[in-house]
Amino acid sequence: MSETTLNIYDRLEQLGIELPSAGAPAAAYVMSAQSGKTVYLSGHIAKRSGAVWTGKLGATLGTEEGKAAARAVAIDLLATLHNHVGDLNHVTRIVKLMSLVNSTPEFTEQHLVTNGASELIAEVFGERGQHARSAFGVAQIPLGACVEIEMIAEVK
Amino acid sequence: MSETTLNIYDRLEQLGIELPSAGAPAAAYVMSAQSGKTVYLSGHIAKRSGAVWTGKLGATLGTEEGKAAARAVAIDLLATLHNHVGDLNHVTRIVKLMSLVNSTPEFTEQHLVTNGASELIAEVFGERGQHARSAFGVAQIPLGACVEIEMIAEVK
Amino acid sequence: MSETTLNIYDRLEQLGIELPSAGAPAAAYVMSAQSGKTVYLSGHIAKRSGAVWTGKLGATLGTEEGKAAARAVAIDLLATLHNHVGDLNHVTRIVKLMSLVNSTPEFTEQHLVTNGASELIAEVFGERGQHARSAFGVAQIPLGACVEIEMIAEVK
Repeated sequence: MSETTLNIYDRLEQLGIELPSAGAPAAAYVMSAQSGKTVYLSGHIAKRSGAVWTGKLGATLGTEEGKAAARAVAIDLLATLHNHVGDLNHVTRIVKLMSLVNSTPEFTEQHLVTNGASELIAEVFGERGQHARSAFGVAQIPLGACVEIEMIAEVK
Repeated sequence: MSETTLNIYDRLEQLGIELPSAGAPAAAYVMSAQSGKTVYLSGHIAKRSGAVWTGKLGATLGTEEGKAAARAVAIDLLATLHNHVGDLNHVTRIVKLMSLVNSTPEFTEQHLVTNGASELIAEVFGERGQHARSAFGVAQIPLGACVEIEMIAEVK
Repeated sequence: MSETTLNIYDRLEQLGIELPSAGAPAAAYVMSAQSGKTVYLSGHIAKRSGAVWTGKLGATLGTEEGKAAARAVAIDLLATLHNHVGDLNHVTRIVKLMSLVNSTPEFTEQHLVTNGASELIAEVFGERGQHARSAFGVAQIPLGACVEIEMIAEVK
């Protein structure tokens, strides 16, 4: 099957990924907002077993664990995107990620942490997953989460 | 009067909000730039009585004061948007906010601070104000401001 | 020659700027992604003589050096944009910059550092270079770079 005709849900199943139910919208904002063909997803914080995945890279978490957290955020972003679009096969491009890594002033591997999200997207979307991104270290994240990522996607 | 026909300036008056004059454009950049129907507003720093609203959450400022500062930034953003569009009734959607909270490495309530902006937008724009957002803690903000927020809006 | 007909490459030559070859795309993401007429450039970290330009504003680097680093990043962004578009004269607008300055919790001149990028863009693109922007201080940047900047541009 050629990449362009790959069904995204088949691909998720091949990868053993089950999308969670999308996060509940908060009172004063929403998890996704669309303008034209562009869908903006809110910053999603890392969760593990349904609870906030807390920690600070360079202090309480290592790069590999941070990378696993970034991968988990990417799966949650796809769940929200699925919930927004209705069918992930209608996503024509993952355009951009912004990845915020809860970091000490000394930790400098935010790019390696963020690869956990970028690689997951490449695995799921192939060429349609080729995205621009920024990754950097922030002083803190809501609820003490170790990673927060927002996404821009293009849809049909 | 139904929400879709609500005049935004009437709504601002009901809320007792008077828009300030928009900030002066700096030399090398502008406070707003439009591409197609998308208006990008520059990061606006918090001000109080015309001066920079300084402080760091978790050290010199509490969450409630930070929330008030975020609300003030949202009003300044609307002033810039009014100045850009000419008529806020032509805004079809507040699409996204990015909220930077000047935080110690321990402060974890950036989402509550940012609600000050999100709630103001919901009050003014109703359904048209349903926006995606990211909120996180940064090491510092220009001139020591406690909050900085940028906005993306969709216009007719 | 009027500003609207100015050839961007002539302007770069007048300014004595030689564009480097664009950065190599990393495995899991790309340096630029386009959706419609909008090109999103990945966050570019500061480099000097081909190596990462490391340092933290407020500790190991002063504002003037940070400003020079931001100018260098802007040139690298133009190189990537040239590589993406093929002809910088097809850029109709530099729409937005987001500038991350590696800062101590005390450094508050991120706007002055970022002017190094904004002024370069104004010099090269004139009116087409009038961009919105956000600038703020972050805890760290990949590989310890002193500045990271991402860009949104509109193309024909």
